[in-house]
Amino acid sequence: MSERVIDQLEKDECLRLIAPGGVGRIAYASRFGPAVLPVNYVLHDGSVVFRTTEDSPLDEDLRTGITGADYAVAFEIDAMDTVGRLGWSVLLQGPAHRLTGGDRVWAERSGVESWAPGDRDLFIQVIPTRVTGRRIDLA
Amino acid sequence: MSERVIDQLEKDECLRLIAPGGVGRIAYASRFGPAVLPVNYVLHDGSVVFRTTEDSPLDEDLRTGITGADYAVAFEIDAMDTVGRLGWSVLLQGPAHRLTGGDRVWAERSGVESWAPGDRDLFIQVIPTRVTGRRIDLA
Repeated sequence: MSERVIDQLEKDECLRLIAPGGVGRIAYASRFGPAVLPVNYVLHDGSVVFRTTEDSPLDEDLRTGITGADYAVAFEIDAMDTVGRLGWSVLLQGPAHRLTGGDRVWAERSGVESWAPGDRDLFIQVIPTRVTGRRIDLA
Repeated sequence: MSERVIDQLEKDECLRLIAPGGVGRIAYASRFGPAVLPVNYVLHDGSVVFRTTEDSPLDEDLRTGITGADYAVAFEIDAMDTVGRLGWSVLLQGPAHRLTGGDRVWAERSGVESWAPGDRDLFIQVIPTRVTGRRIDLA
């Protein structure tokens, strides 16, 4: 049986892996400490865009209370073969920016749909300042 | 086509869903802001146990520097049908406790294996103070 090895991924390779979009996980400091929620996302120009509900707990937790100031979050995407324990994971870290006005237009055109049902009128963009990833493969 | 609905899950139901173990995601405040990593876990007596590498970035980030003081983290597990956009997610929030001495004995017996290869000699237990979940189903 081949040995499994872990490789760190370059930024370009990370962005290539997450380009198809799908389900990712947004992590942030909530009122109850760190929190994580799965959301559908699309990749747009090197950033992640997802939808949530205006005035939801997530929305409230992501507000700094200061106009124009964004909240630092993490966004994780992975694909894993749990039987063979192979796969990859990518982590984006950066500010979560609420999209309003003209920015909303391209966000709606991106076609991102929310994973959870109900009105999801708020578009949030995570513009990464740091992109890291790792892949576990056979040697 | 039936409409999708979202239900909040009770704690007992959450623990039942995550009882088989598998891959979950640990979220914590890292030196670069919020961070998330996939890890294999087992459920032990209502808590989550996983393995990592001693002195790894994750280990260092989860140290408070104060003996006996634990670091607040979140642990998320989900199962999703991305085609039908149905599934569930569970979130545990609480302190991450390093298992040493006698606690290591039961942790090793729990049979938890790390997802990533290499020496993973540090066992970490997340004892949740808050367990929440949601399920998206057809009405």
